Amino acid sequence: NKRKTYSVADYVAGILAGNIGILSQAITLTESSKPEHQLIAQDIIEKCLPYSGKSVRIGITGVPGAGKSTFIEAFGKHVTGQGHKLAVLAIDPSSERSKGSILGDKTRMEELAVDPKAYIRPSPSAGSLGGVARKTRESLILCEAAGFDTILIETVGVGQSETAVHSMVDFFLLIKIAGAGDELQGIKRGIMEMADAISINKADGNNIHKAQLARVQFQNALHLFPESPSGWIPKVLTCSSLEKTGIDSIWDNILDYCSHTQQNGYFDRRRREQAKYWMYETINEQLRDRFYHLDVIKGQIPDFETKVLNDEMSSFVAAHKLLDAYFSDVKNKE
Amino acid sequence: NKRKTYSVADYVAGILAGNIGILSQAITLTESSKPEHQLIAQDIIEKCLPYSGKSVRIGITGVPGAGKSTFIEAFGKHVTGQGHKLAVLAIDPSSERSKGSILGDKTRMEELAVDPKAYIRPSPSAGSLGGVARKTRESLILCEAAGFDTILIETVGVGQSETAVHSMVDFFLLIKIAGAGDELQGIKRGIMEMADAISINKADGNNIHKAQLARVQFQNALHLFPESPSGWIPKVLTCSSLEKTGIDSIWDNILDYCSHTQQNGYFDRRRREQAKYWMYETINEQLRDRFYHLDVIKGQIPDFETKVLNDEMSSFVAAHKLLDAYFSDVKNKE
Repeated sequence: NKRKTYSVADYVAGILAGNIGILSQAITLTESSKPEHQLIAQDIIEKCLPYSGKSVRIGITGVPGAGKSTFIEAFGKHVTGQGHKLAVLAIDPSSERSKGSILGDKTRMEELAVDPKAYIRPSPSAGSLGGVARKTRESLILCEAAGFDTILIETVGVGQSETAVHSMVDFFLLIKIAGAGDELQGIKRGIMEMADAISINKADGNNIHKAQLARVQFQNALHLFPESPSGWIPKVLTCSSLEKTGIDSIWDNILDYCSHTQQNGYFDRRRREQAKYWMYETINEQLRDRFYHLDVIKGQIPDFETKVLNDEMSSFVAAHKLLDAYFSDVKNKE
Repeated sequence: NKRKTYSVADYVAGILAGNIGILSQAITLTESSKPEHQLIAQDIIEKCLPYSGKSVRIGITGVPGAGKSTFIEAFGKHVTGQGHKLAVLAIDPSSERSKGSILGDKTRMEELAVDPKAYIRPSPSAGSLGGVARKTRESLILCEAAGFDTILIETVGVGQSETAVHSMVDFFLLIKIAGAGDELQGIKRGIMEMADAISINKADGNNIHKAQLARVQFQNALHLFPESPSGWIPKVLTCSSLEKTGIDSIWDNILDYCSHTQQNGYFDRRRREQAKYWMYETINEQLRDRFYHLDVIKGQIPDFETKVLNDEMSSFVAAHKLLDAYFSDVKNKE
């Protein structure tokens, strides 16, 4: 077992030297549920932390069918073509997987998968959103320490995970296609207002006119939204991953955003807020996890839920009875 | 002390008989932080629960300056004029109070305040959002048991409280004024996508044309939003609280919504989901409350936060160190 031969110092040195094999193994450790792996992983992350942070972190979302994979392929090739090193990560909790798995299928990114300046890492598998999100944020730190200056984090815009992605990136890109039919109804409400840019994809062939029209409609709609605290006015752009048109404008728009928010101080302020957010979010998630995984709670919850649903007990009384059961159990354990 | 002379049975009988004095005293009990008051209050609520639920619950939000108070006055008079009994509640946690207090000033609702078919109750005072929201939801149950068939819950659309309101109402109305200038920039992102209707207020005098234009713009923008799970397409309406025009259309729109969602089953499904939501939300809030109010945690948090903000410690390590401190403290207490 090759992994056993590395010390924490070996891992850190390998990552800082940009060794992809060691980076991948370290990410695998962060994803492991074994306590001994977690201990090593946390140590590696702490030691990599001072070398992290020097990248542009970009979130990409869009429902299945919007062409995210082909977009990432075209966009990624453009970015590495500019001399950047690109890591592509994903947040795709098991509960959302059925709604459209992402990144699992590297064949959709044939060129990017073999690009020496790109590193593609699928979503950590099965687990709660909180757990998956934590692992992705840790991977992001390791990738930055390994010298990747552009990080893409992909998610499907149908569940809760886009909020998690939004909380760990600098720029949030929403991918859409023109003529939103049934296949696009699934996108979650509220996502549009999170976007720093919207890209209307598949603006090629017969679709160009429709895409241009959609661009104007969305741009008008965005004008009605409240201003972002970044002071940035989101743009709606069109692109074709097939014909590789408009991709450069999206990258330029992201660079504009970075220079705009770095100048007004928002970029760093947001990064700091996100670090704080993840401290509190981790605490809150763990508090919930311990509660809901306790046998005495798991056994009682269905009954209380039924009573609440049938208006036989108020939500608040049910909550307090369960909390009493929990805290008396916690206290009685050594 | 008159309150001492009532038993729980007295309170319940008084509420069910529509006695406003007793209703008010019961609400005061739910708002009290004294454990003995809470015990009585919970008992009253449990006994009123079977008589609650038969109302239309309407949430109203909008930034200060949008004319919420005058709107509620005109809207409320219209609703009571149709023979309905109206209760007006509010969620206005102390943290948000500075951004625009609401309902505290009954002088803005002179007519409604003396209308025998209306009951106005200001927001529970000072406290966390979770606590204030819980109290408002309990008041709602008591008001329904007292025979109020229309409940308005007002909030300021600048903080977190509109999510709490949205989670306890059937219909969510966003109040706006045309020509959104600086005074409207403060509205929180994401609220527009929660709205079941948007009302462009102050559509009178020189403002009519601007309001009509805004109506068209917002209606076009809403078309681009993902469809709501209710299957309801939100309308944008104009009204003048001053000239009492358009108020009836808003009420009719709400009634249309109720009949639409009652027919497709969404109305009841949402109510049940909300009851469940509040059970879990109360649990999660109490778990957080106990954690963050523990002295050992309060003492350590600033230091950990500083380390996380300065990238000296990862968010996750900080969280886990604090959690360890918490659980060892909980276990060691009798």
